Amino acid sequence: MLVDRDTLRYQAIGCGILGAGGGGSPAMGYQAALYALERFGPSTLVSLDDLPDDELVLPMGMVGAPTVAVEKISNGAECGLIVEAVEQWTGRKVAALMSSEIGGANGLFPMEFAASMGIPVVDADGMGRAFPEMPQVSMEIAGISPSPCFMTDERGNVLVVQPSNGRWLEKLCRATAVAFGGKAISSEYLMSVSEARYGAVRGTVTLAIRIGRAIATAPDDPVAALLAEVQGYRLIDGKVTDVERRVTGGFTRGSATIEGLRHDGGRQVRLELQNENLVALEGERRLASVPDIISVVDTETGEAVSTEILRYGQRVSVVAFPCDQIWRSEKGLNLAGPRAFGYDFDFVAVEDIHE
Amino acid sequence: MLVDRDTLRYQAIGCGILGAGGGGSPAMGYQAALYALERFGPSTLVSLDDLPDDELVLPMGMVGAPTVAVEKISNGAECGLIVEAVEQWTGRKVAALMSSEIGGANGLFPMEFAASMGIPVVDADGMGRAFPEMPQVSMEIAGISPSPCFMTDERGNVLVVQPSNGRWLEKLCRATAVAFGGKAISSEYLMSVSEARYGAVRGTVTLAIRIGRAIATAPDDPVAALLAEVQGYRLIDGKVTDVERRVTGGFTRGSATIEGLRHDGGRQVRLELQNENLVALEGERRLASVPDIISVVDTETGEAVSTEILRYGQRVSVVAFPCDQIWRSEKGLNLAGPRAFGYDFDFVAVEDIHE
Repeated sequence: MLVDRDTLRYQAIGCGILGAGGGGSPAMGYQAALYALERFGPSTLVSLDDLPDDELVLPMGMVGAPTVAVEKISNGAECGLIVEAVEQWTGRKVAALMSSEIGGANGLFPMEFAASMGIPVVDADGMGRAFPEMPQVSMEIAGISPSPCFMTDERGNVLVVQPSNGRWLEKLCRATAVAFGGKAISSEYLMSVSEARYGAVRGTVTLAIRIGRAIATAPDDPVAALLAEVQGYRLIDGKVTDVERRVTGGFTRGSATIEGLRHDGGRQVRLELQNENLVALEGERRLASVPDIISVVDTETGEAVSTEILRYGQRVSVVAFPCDQIWRSEKGLNLAGPRAFGYDFDFVAVEDIHE
Repeated sequence: MLVDRDTLRYQAIGCGILGAGGGGSPAMGYQAALYALERFGPSTLVSLDDLPDDELVLPMGMVGAPTVAVEKISNGAECGLIVEAVEQWTGRKVAALMSSEIGGANGLFPMEFAASMGIPVVDADGMGRAFPEMPQVSMEIAGISPSPCFMTDERGNVLVVQPSNGRWLEKLCRATAVAFGGKAISSEYLMSVSEARYGAVRGTVTLAIRIGRAIATAPDDPVAALLAEVQGYRLIDGKVTDVERRVTGGFTRGSATIEGLRHDGGRQVRLELQNENLVALEGERRLASVPDIISVVDTETGEAVSTEILRYGQRVSVVAFPCDQIWRSEKGLNLAGPRAFGYDFDFVAVEDIHE
């Protein structure tokens, strides 16, 4: 299918929701992709089923702190530099782009380049949401090598990283993102189409578009429309009363407090975050946790309020909904469950908590 | 010429002196190279005049903090990984290895691999001494591109860095060295033999061997033999009474105080260091400064006492001697003169201060 302006707008809204607070500002990603669409025409979205088995799929996205990414913007040449380096290094032609993570600006990132470079985008990503660390992708679970990884910035610096494993991918690339000033463009876990068919989370671009359309076309109660679309739960309706946020080690870390209003008067929910919202707590009670998706949305519009734009006074609803099943597997929880983020509790599915 | 055990020992002593306190522990570099020599036979030292014009010369060395390098040792496979990546990336064959800096362990580093890999070492380096930052090489002055740069560590991580300029080379590679744990093996400013003929500082391996031989064969007064060989000056004979040393940002930084003994009784010289000894001060008076070479040597043996092994109580002589002329040029001083290290004074040649 062709991704035109309307579809792109829906996708941007959906990517915001799937971002769980992270993945970079969808508003920024939307503007960049919209500009490219207006200049080069619509991007092409394809199914992995429609591509030849052994062509190369290039997962890509921004690495760093979302709070930095809103100020340190791309120059538009980054993807071209990476594709050039990939083709030089691997000797293979890039057949399609893919978001490393569908959440936030990263979900829109390939759309920005697909049209200008004449390369389609596949209807899949590596997470079905956004996660802070680079190896927290389905390709890691599928045993696809993170190496080589290609990184660049808006100054034309290019790095090819061949890490010895996923942990070193994260360590080396995070250090590079910090050296770049807090944000890098990167591509890793390169794979063939046939590998992507089992290694990626499929159908997530169209999922984002569906979520966005549900929100945008239900002006009376967009949050209810969102919850229906994702089978989600409303954790609280309220007001942001406290935000603590800092950029350390290439991540945005902190917490946010939402005090209930109206029917939720007297309640208080606290979110802990590392780029993404990791845990929602009400006192000692956990309302939801990674890898399930916790998103803060504007109560009026239903659109996501990502970590870098959270601020005192915003009227928001906190929603939570199930992640892709792959993250609830043993390997998935080891990689991106609560304990992977240093918490001392086991994952409980959001539907088990609330039903 | 063939570099055998005796020659290697002389070279190690000379590299220590030329290291100006840095370049990594020559004792460690010597042991590693000696082990390789015993296993694979002598290494071959060649003149740039004897190699074909368009073959590839690979400058290489360790990047990081010397204090880290003594504990985080190599596994012996690093050079092979880099040569493999270089040949894959450039499509050219590596004809010869070269030390990025002749000072310290870095001056011995290519000797460790030359024999096992069947590649000769050229009688040249990029500094004629040691400097803390990667772009502080004669190749930068000669306008040779630092890109691509190849980095690795003992875990098998490999990076290819294409920095937009020398400043970004330093920034990105330093960040990687820190992520590796404080030390990396790197190769940058790749050049053809004909470029190396004007881009490198020539004759520095044989210079190191000459210095080492002078020191080792003058047991009665090795320091005097050293000074004669390098046309140097004895700044003080004394005892190390204070060492302040810390590892920050991938460098060893600090200072050392030497109090005079015997004929220098009552005097006190302070050295300021960033991996290498940068400035020697007596009260307000500057006795020598970068880019001239300031080395601390054992008063009895004449061998260098590098920054990472300086400690209270050592009986040492501080010597200073002229750097290669290239560093006294305008470009050289911009890159590695006192102001390049944040000092607010102009360079004065050591012979002008002391004569």
